[in-house]
Amino acid sequence: MSRELYELVGDDDRRFSPFCWRARLALAHKGLESVYIPVGFTDKDKVAFSGQKLVPVLRDGDEVISDSWDIACYLEDRYPDAPSLFGGAIGRAEARFFNAWLPTLSATIMPMIVKDIHDRARPEDQAYFRQSREARFGATLEEIHAASDAQPALFDAAAAPLRDVLGDQPFLCGEAPAYADYIVFGSFQTARLMSPVRLVAPGDVIHDWRDRMLDLFDGMARAAPACGE
Amino acid sequence: MSRELYELVGDDDRRFSPFCWRARLALAHKGLESVYIPVGFTDKDKVAFSGQKLVPVLRDGDEVISDSWDIACYLEDRYPDAPSLFGGAIGRAEARFFNAWLPTLSATIMPMIVKDIHDRARPEDQAYFRQSREARFGATLEEIHAASDAQPALFDAAAAPLRDVLGDQPFLCGEAPAYADYIVFGSFQTARLMSPVRLVAPGDVIHDWRDRMLDLFDGMARAAPACGE
Repeated sequence: MSRELYELVGDDDRRFSPFCWRARLALAHKGLESVYIPVGFTDKDKVAFSGQKLVPVLRDGDEVISDSWDIACYLEDRYPDAPSLFGGAIGRAEARFFNAWLPTLSATIMPMIVKDIHDRARPEDQAYFRQSREARFGATLEEIHAASDAQPALFDAAAAPLRDVLGDQPFLCGEAPAYADYIVFGSFQTARLMSPVRLVAPGDVIHDWRDRMLDLFDGMARAAPACGE
Repeated sequence: MSRELYELVGDDDRRFSPFCWRARLALAHKGLESVYIPVGFTDKDKVAFSGQKLVPVLRDGDEVISDSWDIACYLEDRYPDAPSLFGGAIGRAEARFFNAWLPTLSATIMPMIVKDIHDRARPEDQAYFRQSREARFGATLEEIHAASDAQPALFDAAAAPLRDVLGDQPFLCGEAPAYADYIVFGSFQTARLMSPVRLVAPGDVIHDWRDRMLDLFDGMARAAPACGE
């Protein structure tokens, strides 16, 4: 059966979308092989078959699923005998909270890295990216970047619950990683791939967790070329 | 076997600690009866047997457990055949994140209600409460209250992940409540018992969830006398 994951791509074939990393790691967690198909910001026509314009999109045989959360739920339900992403109904329900909470964290990161993402987008996508993000922020990318001095402190405050939990257990899902880890890791991976900004330093329990995440599945996430550290 | 939960008490026998409500609801979830023993801020000697000064403390036969999280884990492990608080290892690990995240929410609530808590503490506890909280905030209770106009907006921002999740499912733990619901509910119950401030209005999915929580276990939380709504 053919399986394809459509994921956002930047310059130099960087697969940098946090949502696509969630889907990638969910597939790996289930032990499912897939073809990974790059989609630039301006060639979303590639996923028109899914009836919407956002990635990730998973095509699994005859099934087409978009939205990273729906993809995780689909994989959990379709492949119940493979390792669980949620560990049951309560774990799935709680993972949804991580999904809902994550924007609180990523909102503190984005001003620090949005110009870097622009600079590492495919050249043909940069105008679109600039226009859409500047409209969203109400400022130019350069203004956002210049005004981001306060973001590290805001990031640290938002990340406090992660630091608390990871001081007590190696993964957000306990002794082994599962989908809530992938939800959170996606944003760290985006920053790592697209920006030299260092969000967490060695010695920080979040840094140690990120290292463990980079090692998973034969270093799948680590193999993606980092920008900076 | 004797079972006793030591919990914080205010004036008029109000049992208002959010952490004690977590333990109360965890006991009810497990179907365990208990004696509930009131402890005022200034008579913590009552729990000296636990080797520390904070409530809740659970005495379960010969076992003594303090700290609401540890009590939940103890109950889950000691009574594995009763309904699960966590739904497995991943659910337990994820519930710890709710535990770590909750201060983000309660920090937005406390300035709105801290003077009300003082006013409804036992008269003999009010001086202690005022002194300790004013030292913590670096302001008088009256100053904190007067400066709390911005708190509702901060509360709404912090509560956004709850609102998102509860728009999709009736409880934070899915179709039925479990420990993560009790973690979050405790803070709403404290506000309800001690302050006329309305955190959530009818029509808000959080309000609807709170109503469902108040109905649990034959209306156990609803039976506690509210202050205001």
